[in-house]
Amino acid sequence: MGDQSVVSLANDSQSGSPVTIPTLRWEEPPEGPVVILLDQTRLPTEEVELVCTDVLALVDAIRSLAVRGAPVLGLAGAYGVALAAARGFDVAEAAQLLASARPTAVNLGYGVRRAAAAYRTALVGSADPRRAARAALAEARALHAEDAAASDRMAGHGLALLKELVPGGGYRVLTHCNTGALVSGGGGTAFAVAHAAHREGLLRRLWVDETRPLLQGARLTAYEAARAGMTYTLLADNAAGSLFAAGAVDAVLIGADRIAADGSVANKVGSYPLAVLAAHHNVPFVVVAPTTTVDLSTPDGASIEVEQRPGHEVTELASPRAPVTEAGPGIQVAPLGTQAYNPAFDITPAALVTALVTENGVASPVTAATLAALAPAEAG
Amino acid sequence: MGDQSVVSLANDSQSGSPVTIPTLRWEEPPEGPVVILLDQTRLPTEEVELVCTDVLALVDAIRSLAVRGAPVLGLAGAYGVALAAARGFDVAEAAQLLASARPTAVNLGYGVRRAAAAYRTALVGSADPRRAARAALAEARALHAEDAAASDRMAGHGLALLKELVPGGGYRVLTHCNTGALVSGGGGTAFAVAHAAHREGLLRRLWVDETRPLLQGARLTAYEAARAGMTYTLLADNAAGSLFAAGAVDAVLIGADRIAADGSVANKVGSYPLAVLAAHHNVPFVVVAPTTTVDLSTPDGASIEVEQRPGHEVTELASPRAPVTEAGPGIQVAPLGTQAYNPAFDITPAALVTALVTENGVASPVTAATLAALAPAEAG
Repeated sequence: MGDQSVVSLANDSQSGSPVTIPTLRWEEPPEGPVVILLDQTRLPTEEVELVCTDVLALVDAIRSLAVRGAPVLGLAGAYGVALAAARGFDVAEAAQLLASARPTAVNLGYGVRRAAAAYRTALVGSADPRRAARAALAEARALHAEDAAASDRMAGHGLALLKELVPGGGYRVLTHCNTGALVSGGGGTAFAVAHAAHREGLLRRLWVDETRPLLQGARLTAYEAARAGMTYTLLADNAAGSLFAAGAVDAVLIGADRIAADGSVANKVGSYPLAVLAAHHNVPFVVVAPTTTVDLSTPDGASIEVEQRPGHEVTELASPRAPVTEAGPGIQVAPLGTQAYNPAFDITPAALVTALVTENGVASPVTAATLAALAPAEAG
Repeated sequence: MGDQSVVSLANDSQSGSPVTIPTLRWEEPPEGPVVILLDQTRLPTEEVELVCTDVLALVDAIRSLAVRGAPVLGLAGAYGVALAAARGFDVAEAAQLLASARPTAVNLGYGVRRAAAAYRTALVGSADPRRAARAALAEARALHAEDAAASDRMAGHGLALLKELVPGGGYRVLTHCNTGALVSGGGGTAFAVAHAAHREGLLRRLWVDETRPLLQGARLTAYEAARAGMTYTLLADNAAGSLFAAGAVDAVLIGADRIAADGSVANKVGSYPLAVLAAHHNVPFVVVAPTTTVDLSTPDGASIEVEQRPGHEVTELASPRAPVTEAGPGIQVAPLGTQAYNPAFDITPAALVTALVTENGVASPVTAATLAALAPAEAG
């Protein structure tokens, strides 16, 4: 267990004020550098910051989902390497710990590799660990800025695509899990597109899947939608079928945690059933993700490792005030001894994806060729 | 609020013993006749009986889902009429209150009509209210016996169908909501088929959808599966898609709350997405329901009234120890002020139903003609 400390902030989440607490930030108080996270397991009831002074604390925060979501995991990985370097810990070991904290998220490893490579290059050039630490931090900051800029570009490309796919505006968009500012250095992925539509007065309603078992939709997307002033409605994931059948969904917008070279999309469990429903009802199913989520070294969907999470996330109801990784505070729902199947993600084949929106443009249809054109192989 | 009293029973739900507390029964203690229910909102943590001395108490129990599930709602309706008659209340008024307690369940109205018709006929013939009350009770008991017999016949027909559809045994069956002895005067509907397969050693695994928002799968089906000694695994409804994609489902077995004349099936919300997934993966989707669930006076799926339930079932996590109809004890999950879309049921068109298993045999494909052949129009 690393060293985390917690700072409770004034909770004005009900006021509707546009307060923005950064999802993740680097600070350098006199006691030494820290990575500060908005603890997403406490939202929307409480806005609490988690101060990580070392890599183990950050790994705990990643595993417990205090910080989660593809792009911001890349930032956590990069700043984590910078933190280890700045505090004089073993950078290679820190990089390995961070990269393996969650297996499906490709951005995590990407962020770790970028910062670690910057550190190594600077160390080779200067033989000065302090200089190398500054290089790692600069790389994390560069990734942060790139991520924010990528959000804006995805929002622009995604909104242009919506205007094509659903002429006339008044979009009723269904989304799953959480893909807004909480997952990104900027406005996020799928949510950023819906937000761009909202700002132009084109979003009629955001349908928010609650996203069992961890309820990221109910807790986090509803929180972001409320703060953004959107008209939104929450639903049990099971009710999405009724919305499609009623013709009440114009488009599905989701994010991604890893995209294989054949265009298969790993995203929060429940995404694949939505893709099948959308295809059945001829509704566009749009994936929004930065090119850093594309992993050309994973050839296809079957090669994507899907994280299996603890069964108590399903057999117990966890209070959002208690970290979900601690057994005990949950309310037992199923009979004691019940086994659960609890994959965190599922895989949607490219054929069911109408379009992939990245910061570099839109792939539609999604094929190995259109994907490779948008997301060239990672340098170095 | 009617007069309910509560009797706590020894809780040995973890012992694996084959204790069977009747889901619903009629008793005549010295203080007067009562309908006694096993309170399903307390399961699996506690086995508590609810003693209803009047119709308002029974209506409360139906609305709060202390008693739920298509066939047993018919029994609740019939015994409710008998209770009103035996205690000298206005039978026509009681019948109306009971029949409108939940709008989608066709069996509820069917049970009410049968007992009320028996009461009226006896009253016209004898002009003796006590004799008419006895006739209503006799009709409720007849319905109870018919329901138990129908369970056995559905189990037999359903197992024969499984043997045809999935040669070789080792069935991996996915089910949704709760359809066992808790919903019936006998062994239930879809669960009774899985149970019959289990007794013959043919059931490899029962996949149990947790069934948000009220978790009837996690709470009730897991309870019944554990008691029956089945190998079962619980999953968040979102994970069903991953099971289909992995080829881990041989058949879907579900119940029904109302079947229209064109074969459209109203069942617990989340059933329709499973039907679409099953069709996409070429997996049999089998509906098991007594012919009393068929409503030939409802022409098609669009004509079925779907009950909308309170939003707090989605915006809050209710403890299974607290009745879900009372706001307050739930844990707020979504931001305050969040609106929810919370239909209790969805509609699956006949074309997506591989077969309908009834006590009178199997309809496959399900069409207006095959349905009418199994379920002749209700007499009277």
